[in-house]
Amino acid sequence: MDTAERLAAIEEIRQARAKYWRGVDACDGELVKSVLAKDCVLEYFGCCTDPQSGVDYLPAMNVALRGRDQWLSDGMARFGIVSVHQGNQSEITVTSATTAEGVWAFTDRMWFPPGGEFRHLVGWGHYHETYVVEDGAWKIATTRISRIRVQVE
Amino acid sequence: MDTAERLAAIEEIRQARAKYWRGVDACDGELVKSVLAKDCVLEYFGCCTDPQSGVDYLPAMNVALRGRDQWLSDGMARFGIVSVHQGNQSEITVTSATTAEGVWAFTDRMWFPPGGEFRHLVGWGHYHETYVVEDGAWKIATTRISRIRVQVE
Amino acid sequence: MDTAERLAAIEEIRQARAKYWRGVDACDGELVKSVLAKDCVLEYFGCCTDPQSGVDYLPAMNVALRGRDQWLSDGMARFGIVSVHQGNQSEITVTSATTAEGVWAFTDRMWFPPGGEFRHLVGWGHYHETYVVEDGAWKIATTRISRIRVQVE
Repeated sequence: MDTAERLAAIEEIRQARAKYWRGVDACDGELVKSVLAKDCVLEYFGCCTDPQSGVDYLPAMNVALRGRDQWLSDGMARFGIVSVHQGNQSEITVTSATTAEGVWAFTDRMWFPPGGEFRHLVGWGHYHETYVVEDGAWKIATTRISRIRVQVE
Repeated sequence: MDTAERLAAIEEIRQARAKYWRGVDACDGELVKSVLAKDCVLEYFGCCTDPQSGVDYLPAMNVALRGRDQWLSDGMARFGIVSVHQGNQSEITVTSATTAEGVWAFTDRMWFPPGGEFRHLVGWGHYHETYVVEDGAWKIATTRISRIRVQVE
Repeated sequence: MDTAERLAAIEEIRQARAKYWRGVDACDGELVKSVLAKDCVLEYFGCCTDPQSGVDYLPAMNVALRGRDQWLSDGMARFGIVSVHQGNQSEITVTSATTAEGVWAFTDRMWFPPGGEFRHLVGWGHYHETYVVEDGAWKIATTRISRIRVQVE
């Protein structure tokens, strides 16, 4: 790849990540799936555990989604959850014409229906990801989350 | 446009957006106007309504600014408001050599003078925009806001 | 520099900034130093002063770090502080083949050990920076911070 092609790959990967988050927050499962590799592995282990206190606020989230077809079409709306995912600085490295890896700083917020233990969870951390070209487009192949801080109110 | 030119357009558009927000938060009207198209249409309808509760915290914001010359030189300082606008992941698509469209995830915060109903409003959502080349530079042509959540304290 | 080279410089600078922040938050001093110029000047004056009230929450932060070797290998872990730094929209301008300047909107958060005056400090503002090519890579040469708002709880 020449310089322009490499930069175009990075741009396309960033926009794929943006579509994933917009799809999650809009409960638009088709938009999410449009940027997932067919055999993607999305790991959410530890995503709701505060590393400072060790408290896991949502043990049900310690799962991995294996394969694009496992994505729920209605997302978190099924549970009455409203979410906001926001990406910040990212480090994307193209490792070949069809593979790349990346780290994203991010914040996510979830608001839960009344009656639970807490109404709002907010977390800060990083996504660690790999990407592949599939059907002529960059897709998310794997993701896992590391946390700096998770808190509820 | 070749690949490098298309990527340069995306970069310039992102920096125009950054100047707009920096201008708003610094109450620097000239900086904001430097990145607005002459006949821009900036719609703020619904920008202070929480979609979850339906509450509109600032009905006065349900306005559209039509034309760059309508921008107030002193911005929100006139009302004693301090603001922070922060852009996150964005999807910018160049649709021709002189037109483009984009979606930005963002947070905005406003702090109000004492004595009002609330001191701080924070909102999360997306800007949906179009851009044009005017006088040899990319400018914001239209914008509208969709919200996921707005809250006050 | 041609267009692709200029864009590659901007991309590399953004990723250098991301590594700096990731290194700070992970207390990984080697990662931070890998993106600092040998004779860098990092000014933190005013970084913990709220411009609205004039209160300086951490007067000890009014310092400048001069030279990469001054960076503490263990960072804020020495003080029991947990930090999250998040970059938002940025304006990077390449001024020559080996120099550039930039402005970044950002949020930073610090959580302090129990027993102090406050547990959490959050600030919003901008980094104003210059960059240089050194040993074949873009590095942070100078930085200073301007604030819109700083608050504690």
